[in-house]
Amino acid sequence: MKTFLILAAAAAATPAPKPAPAPSEIVAAAPKGDWVAIAPADLLVMDLASGKRVVIQLMPPPFSQGWVGNIRKLAAARWWDGTSINRVQDNYVVQWGDADGEDKAKAKVVPGGLATVPESDYSIRPDKTQFKTLWSFRGSYAAGSFTNWGRNGSDFRDPYSNVVSFSGGFPVGLRTQLIDSSAQGAADFPLQAWPVHCYGMVGVGRDMPPDTGTGAELYTVIGHAPRHLDRNIALVGRVISGIEHLSSLPRGTGPLGFYEKPEERTGITSIRIGTEVQGLPRYEYLSTESASFAAYTDARANRRDAFFIQPAGGADICNIPVPVRMTK
Amino acid sequence: MKTFLILAAAAAATPAPKPAPAPSEIVAAAPKGDWVAIAPADLLVMDLASGKRVVIQLMPPPFSQGWVGNIRKLAAARWWDGTSINRVQDNYVVQWGDADGEDKAKAKVVPGGLATVPESDYSIRPDKTQFKTLWSFRGSYAAGSFTNWGRNGSDFRDPYSNVVSFSGGFPVGLRTQLIDSSAQGAADFPLQAWPVHCYGMVGVGRDMPPDTGTGAELYTVIGHAPRHLDRNIALVGRVISGIEHLSSLPRGTGPLGFYEKPEERTGITSIRIGTEVQGLPRYEYLSTESASFAAYTDARANRRDAFFIQPAGGADICNIPVPVRMTK
Repeated sequence: MKTFLILAAAAAATPAPKPAPAPSEIVAAAPKGDWVAIAPADLLVMDLASGKRVVIQLMPPPFSQGWVGNIRKLAAARWWDGTSINRVQDNYVVQWGDADGEDKAKAKVVPGGLATVPESDYSIRPDKTQFKTLWSFRGSYAAGSFTNWGRNGSDFRDPYSNVVSFSGGFPVGLRTQLIDSSAQGAADFPLQAWPVHCYGMVGVGRDMPPDTGTGAELYTVIGHAPRHLDRNIALVGRVISGIEHLSSLPRGTGPLGFYEKPEERTGITSIRIGTEVQGLPRYEYLSTESASFAAYTDARANRRDAFFIQPAGGADICNIPVPVRMTK
Repeated sequence: MKTFLILAAAAAATPAPKPAPAPSEIVAAAPKGDWVAIAPADLLVMDLASGKRVVIQLMPPPFSQGWVGNIRKLAAARWWDGTSINRVQDNYVVQWGDADGEDKAKAKVVPGGLATVPESDYSIRPDKTQFKTLWSFRGSYAAGSFTNWGRNGSDFRDPYSNVVSFSGGFPVGLRTQLIDSSAQGAADFPLQAWPVHCYGMVGVGRDMPPDTGTGAELYTVIGHAPRHLDRNIALVGRVISGIEHLSSLPRGTGPLGFYEKPEERTGITSIRIGTEVQGLPRYEYLSTESASFAAYTDARANRRDAFFIQPAGGADICNIPVPVRMTK
C-alpha cells in the first residue's frame, strides 16, 4: 500500500458520488480570459551563482511604489550583481543584498538617487476609485453566492485586519468603517489598505524606525506568514517562480539566521528587470476579480474533494495563494 | 550601515523611552516555575543518515492517543530504521517512512499489532474536566487583563474554528456554544476540540477516507499552516528541535513533492522514544497556562518593542509558537 498524504488526486478509487473539484482543478479549468499577463517590466529576475533562477513580481500600484521605483533604479545600476544571500532564518525569511550593508547603493545610483520613502507609505488611504478595486474580490465572491461572505464572522476572519481582500492579484488587509448610507444601506468602506506578509512575499530590510529602507536589501518569507510585520515594513512583490531555491538553503547559525562565514553565502550573479532578460517565459496570474478565483477561494475554504471529510468553513488569507502559471 | 531586518535586538540605540519588551525578552525572563519539563518518554528522536537529529514531542492526551500508541510500538519495533525521507513539498510538508508504503509495519509490530483509529478521533468531545483545561489559557490571558479577550471579534479571530486556545502546550481549535447559565451568565463551552496544523506540527499520512493511517508514515509542516487539514488528518506531535534539517532539504520534483529517484532520499538511521536515547538534553516548554505565556501572547499580538511602529492588535494562533528550551 502506497500512502499518499493529501491530494491523492491520481488514486483510482471507486468513482461513486463525484466529489467537488479540488482547488487545483478549478484553476486548471479557468478560462483564458480569467488570466492576467504579468508584464516583463514588472518582473525582477534574480540569477544565483548556483545556476538557479528566482522570479519576483513587483508590487503593482497603489502599494509601495516609492520602494519599487528604487528597486528599478538599483537593478538598472547593477547594484546587486556580485552581492549575496546573507541570511536564512528558519520559518521566517531569506534575505539578500550587499553583505556590508546598503550605504554604497545610494552612491551607486546616480543620477536621481534613491527616494527616501515615508513610513506612511506602508499602507494607503484609498480614494473612491481605489476602494472599488480593493473591494472587487469581495464583490465577485459575494456574486458567486458562496457561503458566509461579509465582515468578520465570515469565512475570512482575520486577527490582523478587520477585512481581508485581494487587489490586483495580491492579498491585502483593510481597516474599514461601517457607514450607513440611506441610499444603499450600511456598507463597509476601506479607510486604510496594505499588502500582507504571506509566504513568498518580498519585503524591504530596514534599520530601526524611522528608517524605511531603500529596497537595496530584500527578503522573502519562507515560513508561516509573519503578519505582525504588516504596516511595519514595505512589501514590494512576491516570488512567482523558484522560491524553492531560497527556502531550501541551509539556515544561518548566527543571530537572526545570518551566515557566520562569508563562504556560506550564496552568490547573486545578477538581478534584472524582466525586459532585460532574454528568453524569459511569460507569466500570468489568475485574476482575483474573476469568477474562477471566487470559486477557487470557496474551495480553499471548504475542501469537499475526495480526500477531505471535514470542510473547514473558512480560510486564512495566506492559505489562499494566488495561482500563477507559466505560458509559452 | 548594517541593515538588520526585524528584531534588531542587539542594536545599541539611544536608550530613550524604554520600549515594551519583545516576546523573546518575556520568555527569557519567565520564572523557572512557568516551564514544564517534557518527559523523555514523550519524545521521539529521529537520527538522519546525514548525522543530523530531529526531536519530536508526542501529542499529550486527550488528543490522538490511538496513533501515538501505534508510534510507540513502531519505534519499539525499530520500524523506521533504514527507512527514508521520501517527500519534500515546498511551503507544505516533509514526509518520511518506508518508501514502499506501510503495509509491512503492521506485520512487523507483533504482538498486539497496530490500532485502527476511527476518524472521530481527529477531534475530541471534551468532558467537563477537559474543557476546563482547554479553556485555561484563555482564562489566564483574561486574568492578565490584556486587550480584547473573548470570542471572535477578539485578538485571535480565526477562520478555522470559532475559538482558539492552547492546551498542554499545544495550540487547539475549538467549536463552542454560548450557553446561558443563570448562575454565571453566558459562557462559551467547548463542544469539540482538535490540535491544529501549525509550522512544525507532525501528522499521520493516510490513504483516502475512511483510512486514517497507522502512524507508520509521518509528515511535518514546513510552510504556512495548512489548517484545512485540521480534523482531516491526525496530528501526533511537533518538532521541538532540528526542524531546519528537514525544512532545508531539496524539494522533490515529482507529484506532491515526492523524490523521483531513490538516491535523492535522506536516510533515517533510527527513530527511538527518548528513554532509549543516551545523553539526550532535557527539554521544557513554557506552560501555556502561565502568566508568562499570557504576556508573551499579548506581546506577539501587539508588538511594541523598538523595531515596530504599528502593533497588529491580534495574532494568528500559528504565529504564537509555544516556546521550548533545552536545559542541562
